Amino acid sequence: MSVALEGNILVTGTSRGIGLELVRQLAQKSGGGAHIYACCREPEGAGGQALRQLSAQHPGKISIIKLDVADEQSISAAVEAVKKKVGASGLNLLINNAAINKPASPASLLSTGKKDMMEVFETNVAGPFLLTKMLHPLLQSAAKSCSAAEGMSCRRAAVINVSTLLSSIEKCPETFAMAQMYPYRTSKAALNMLTSCQAENFRADNILVAAVHPGWVRTDMGGEQAPLTTEDSVLGMIRVLSTLSSKHSGKLLDWEGNSIPW
Amino acid sequence: MSVALEGNILVTGTSRGIGLELVRQLAQKSGGGAHIYACCREPEGAGGQALRQLSAQHPGKISIIKLDVADEQSISAAVEAVKKKVGASGLNLLINNAAINKPASPASLLSTGKKDMMEVFETNVAGPFLLTKMLHPLLQSAAKSCSAAEGMSCRRAAVINVSTLLSSIEKCPETFAMAQMYPYRTSKAALNMLTSCQAENFRADNILVAAVHPGWVRTDMGGEQAPLTTEDSVLGMIRVLSTLSSKHSGKLLDWEGNSIPW
Ligand SMILES: NC(=O)c1ccc[n+]([C@@H]2O[C@H](COP(=O)([O-])OP(=O)(O)OC[C@H]3O[C@@H](n4cnc5c(N)ncnc54)[C@H](OP(=O)(O)O)[C@@H]3O)[C@@H](O)[C@H]2O)c1
Ligand SMILES: NC(=O)c1ccc[n+]([C@@H]2O[C@H](COP(=O)([O-])OP(=O)(O)OC[C@H]3O[C@@H](n4cnc5c(N)ncnc54)[C@H](OP(=O)(O)O)[C@@H]3O)[C@@H](O)[C@H]2O)c1
Repeated sequence: MSVALEGNILVTGTSRGIGLELVRQLAQKSGGGAHIYACCREPEGAGGQALRQLSAQHPGKISIIKLDVADEQSISAAVEAVKKKVGASGLNLLINNAAINKPASPASLLSTGKKDMMEVFETNVAGPFLLTKMLHPLLQSAAKSCSAAEGMSCRRAAVINVSTLLSSIEKCPETFAMAQMYPYRTSKAALNMLTSCQAENFRADNILVAAVHPGWVRTDMGGEQAPLTTEDSVLGMIRVLSTLSSKHSGKLLDWEGNSIPW
Repeated sequence: MSVALEGNILVTGTSRGIGLELVRQLAQKSGGGAHIYACCREPEGAGGQALRQLSAQHPGKISIIKLDVADEQSISAAVEAVKKKVGASGLNLLINNAAINKPASPASLLSTGKKDMMEVFETNVAGPFLLTKMLHPLLQSAAKSCSAAEGMSCRRAAVINVSTLLSSIEKCPETFAMAQMYPYRTSKAALNMLTSCQAENFRADNILVAAVHPGWVRTDMGGEQAPLTTEDSVLGMIRVLSTLSSKHSGKLLDWEGNSIPW
């Protein structure tokens, strides 16, 4: 099996769903020198149980880090902890996966309040904004330790924001009726803009920034009707991630590598 | 001079800048039956002075309404006040113009904090979201009082969200270096998604929803280097608004009528 990804990899929201499966497959498929920083809100509680089991199956490969992306102090503390562990080699890959979708589907105009709009934006956009900002120096370190000729890649230094097809304003006329989700959609459109801004901002550092749609996946968020398993979605995403280069920076791709219009 | 717009028109953020000029030109150019609800945060304070002068120049044509779009209770109170005044004829045109852009330019990654991200989203997205939600019944009333054959227009019933070229993710690689503005850009991309969602949501009601970029305009926000005066920007915007039909619902146009990619 080819080594898809390497180095220090941080994933948010890994207690369940796509995040947990990302950690599982990254632990299996990444190179021998790879280390996964699996972040979750409750490392010690019931929420972290699946993650603790996974970590035990891969001794020395996974560090579980406490992180609530809606809490600025929690972000600072997590960044400090990761900084100490990675040292001079820095961080090679940050996957902003944690997100919420509320109120309950369809999240129509009438059922959605200001609080929903603010909370979803806080977790889905302000969280990735701050975490990426604070981890930027570690991503720079990782990028610098490669030769300039290497170009951009998820092995060198990259930020992947987990977005969604529902973030596409272009596709909204097709997708709105089945999933209104005002807070979620506006937050993910904002996350796409963040992706594009950071791609420009970090280009000189050779840090790749892209957004990925995992497909419609059977998780707590995706629901039981979703056609994709977490296994297949993550299999596809990791395959896509391992092929990304500078031309993909600032783009939105799905788990099969197809590009999605803004 | 042709009558560009008609009926009950509400504009937010009219104490200065583009909003104040919108009220000025709407008072001059709208039909005899038109009435403008000019909203601002401080109708009685120094902030409302220019607006009070303008209102005095057009007796019976302008009602000044107190409205802080970042304050849910203020929105409720303003909607109640407008509801009483417009009665069964409802609201024909809502222009969500009020917005903020912080921190100070360039609003780089380093200078931007979580509070900036949250506050800008609150004013620029949650505000228009809530105000439009609460005014929806009044827009429906206005739309119903026209014959179905009339189709969509800003004279019948419409929501115009004032967006910006900087909201375009597609154009970000060209525009990022001159205006980083993380909070502003992410908020306006979210506003574009809101526009698209509400356009779909309100299509069956015959309510048009579109986003308009006013150009780069010499205001407190636009700065002194901006090439456009508020007069010329608003002249263009009103011309564009008066030509909109169902095919423009869910789109982003500039003050000259050119469409801007998401
Ligand atoms: N499932 C789909 O069909 C689908 C489709 C498109 C995009 N996506 C995207 O894929 C990503 C993962 O979704 P999923 O389906 O795996 O969702 P999920 O099953 O609901 O899991 C969400 C994960 O995010 C974590 N999380 C939520 N808020 C957090 C916070 N404030 N701080 C830290 N972690 C937090 C949750 O942790 P707790 O256990 O502590 O709550 C959980 O681990 C999201 O970005 C989502 O938008 C999913
Ligand atoms: N100027 C440009 O070059 C440019 C370019 C693209 C898009 N735009 C957009 O055009 C619109 C108007 O911009 P502008 O240049 O006229 O800006 P401006 O000169 O800064 O004026 C902003 C207006 O919004 C009001 N406002 C701010 N926060 C508010 C709140 N919470 N509640 C109610 N009103 C509030 C302000 O009221 P106070 O006086 O009470 O603060 C003021 O009336 C905005 O949507 C902006 O994003 C402007």
